[in-house]
Amino acid sequence: MEKINFVVIGYGGMGGYHARELIQEKDGVQVIGVYDIDEKRLEVAKNDNFKTYDTLESVLNDKSVEAVLIATPNDSHKELAIAALKAGKHVVCEKPVMMDTKELEEVIAVAKLEHKTFMVHQNRRWDNDFLIIRDLYETKQIGDLFQIESRVQGANGIPGDWRHMKQHGGGMLLDWGVHLLDQMLFMVDSPVKTVAADLSFVLGDEVDDGFISYLTFGNGVKAIVEVGTTNFVKLPRWYVRGFEGGAVISDWDLSGEIVKQTGIIDHHNLVPIQAGQGLTKTMAPPSEDATTTLPIKEVAADFDNFYHNFYDVVRNNAEPIVKNEEVYRVLRLIEAIFEAAEKQQVIEFE
Amino acid sequence: MEKINFVVIGYGGMGGYHARELIQEKDGVQVIGVYDIDEKRLEVAKNDNFKTYDTLESVLNDKSVEAVLIATPNDSHKELAIAALKAGKHVVCEKPVMMDTKELEEVIAVAKLEHKTFMVHQNRRWDNDFLIIRDLYETKQIGDLFQIESRVQGANGIPGDWRHMKQHGGGMLLDWGVHLLDQMLFMVDSPVKTVAADLSFVLGDEVDDGFISYLTFGNGVKAIVEVGTTNFVKLPRWYVRGFEGGAVISDWDLSGEIVKQTGIIDHHNLVPIQAGQGLTKTMAPPSEDATTTLPIKEVAADFDNFYHNFYDVVRNNAEPIVKNEEVYRVLRLIEAIFEAAEKQQVIEFE
Repeated sequence: MEKINFVVIGYGGMGGYHARELIQEKDGVQVIGVYDIDEKRLEVAKNDNFKTYDTLESVLNDKSVEAVLIATPNDSHKELAIAALKAGKHVVCEKPVMMDTKELEEVIAVAKLEHKTFMVHQNRRWDNDFLIIRDLYETKQIGDLFQIESRVQGANGIPGDWRHMKQHGGGMLLDWGVHLLDQMLFMVDSPVKTVAADLSFVLGDEVDDGFISYLTFGNGVKAIVEVGTTNFVKLPRWYVRGFEGGAVISDWDLSGEIVKQTGIIDHHNLVPIQAGQGLTKTMAPPSEDATTTLPIKEVAADFDNFYHNFYDVVRNNAEPIVKNEEVYRVLRLIEAIFEAAEKQQVIEFE
Repeated sequence: MEKINFVVIGYGGMGGYHARELIQEKDGVQVIGVYDIDEKRLEVAKNDNFKTYDTLESVLNDKSVEAVLIATPNDSHKELAIAALKAGKHVVCEKPVMMDTKELEEVIAVAKLEHKTFMVHQNRRWDNDFLIIRDLYETKQIGDLFQIESRVQGANGIPGDWRHMKQHGGGMLLDWGVHLLDQMLFMVDSPVKTVAADLSFVLGDEVDDGFISYLTFGNGVKAIVEVGTTNFVKLPRWYVRGFEGGAVISDWDLSGEIVKQTGIIDHHNLVPIQAGQGLTKTMAPPSEDATTTLPIKEVAADFDNFYHNFYDVVRNNAEPIVKNEEVYRVLRLIEAIFEAAEKQQVIEFE
């Protein structure tokens, strides 16, 4: 069938990445042009050999444009998405999808009314590190996971301009947070019962430069989701505990280990170790024949890639991998995290 | 001056450690005997060349005994301490000092009445890893610390017998927790404003086999104190962030690093890195000339050792390093952690 012609709206870091790398003909999608309100960026797009549009209107009036990719600052997503949907275009939207759930409700209603596809680019569902943890969760290789800690920490502060500003939907909870929370809810098949959270304002910005959240799920899983931008040393990207072992993925390079319990720990023959000024049996390593260390292996996604799935949704009425209900739920959770942090209280969620 | 003659009450793991290694003549203290209700342990003490006592009475009636070290299960501390104080003995007590604050109030009152010294063996104030972090806190080498995470994690479950039982004061919050919380309150010179916490019951015991607590201090410091006994992989022993850097101490061997910010991070020239399926400037490493990595060096305690200080308190009316008010405050905090975990709410503290 015919390829889906995309125009990329917003030719910043992410928009450029979509245009140059993500939107690939092999998936049935192609970029036929770029629009940006900033003339300098349009120049860059021209130099990258893209046709450019000078106005949003000209994009929306172009009958050869079947879909748009929205990669603009967060506070402009809603208006652009609604305009595009009303003009009969399908829409792929960068994360965070909207500023709040109310905005998203409006957009979803318009998409339904216009019978157009609206899909959010939650690309980190395809991250290798996440797929490995999700595989542990599903295959129970180290037993049922009961604690899942997901952290992304850097020392660069918040780069860029609008990401520092509340009115543009800045802050790390809406930026990296939406990824990590989306992964967590995509993986753990259970309602979130409680939410505790604390935001960090180390940079002195009006928006959070990081946060820590503690989630408890109905199935007993406890999760920590944390982002930091003023962290000169890092904790591992993933730290998980199962009833028969644990795993750590330290960094994007997938360094780390999976330790599986293979035998019974003999409490009566534990040899205490010197730990600081004291002896401890409790914190001594388990005997060597009680555990085995497994390598971390890449795991392929058992679901289609984003743009090929988008193609299938538009052309063949396939089930979207990133469902709007899921995106909406993540946004609700983000609002609960903001509330829990502001009130400094544990919030009941689902 | 004359040495202080100790009898060790309870010749289990810790009692034996005190008798054989901690109570040293060079500090002005010496062990002249051992008492245990368990005859087998008395046999062990005899084989270790200690004089043994068959009854508590015979210890308390022995005029040559000036002090006792209590290293019995937690629920017996109070009764033993009060009996010893009333018999005119000074008392050193293992941690956790008492089952709750009410018990401790009683004991402190008796010590005051009898004009005897009652001091708790919070030996981990002398741990090398802790002293390094405390030094960072005090010298501000990486700026004021604003986040301090202290974790001890093992995979052996709860060893021993009575530590599994509530009536004996078992559980990890009262065991390792009391150490880590004592260190934190000894280091951070500010009231604890709020306490959030969650206990873990992975082993299915009636007592907690671990916990996580989140403390906020009046001076802005946020602390995580965490203990786990079903952790087949470990997070670092210490993870701290300062306004000019961060530090991690991975394990008892003091492996880790201190990263100090030495230059301004140039946000406009950050090179994005590939992280999973996305590019990120935020989580790219800072440019090399913006930070420097410092080695972790041992730091000597700027206070006396425990038993020499005890000697000085008894003989020279010195200030105790481990003050009963401090021990009482830690116990109050433990009660707040139990309450926060049970109610699943954030508790206001001081």
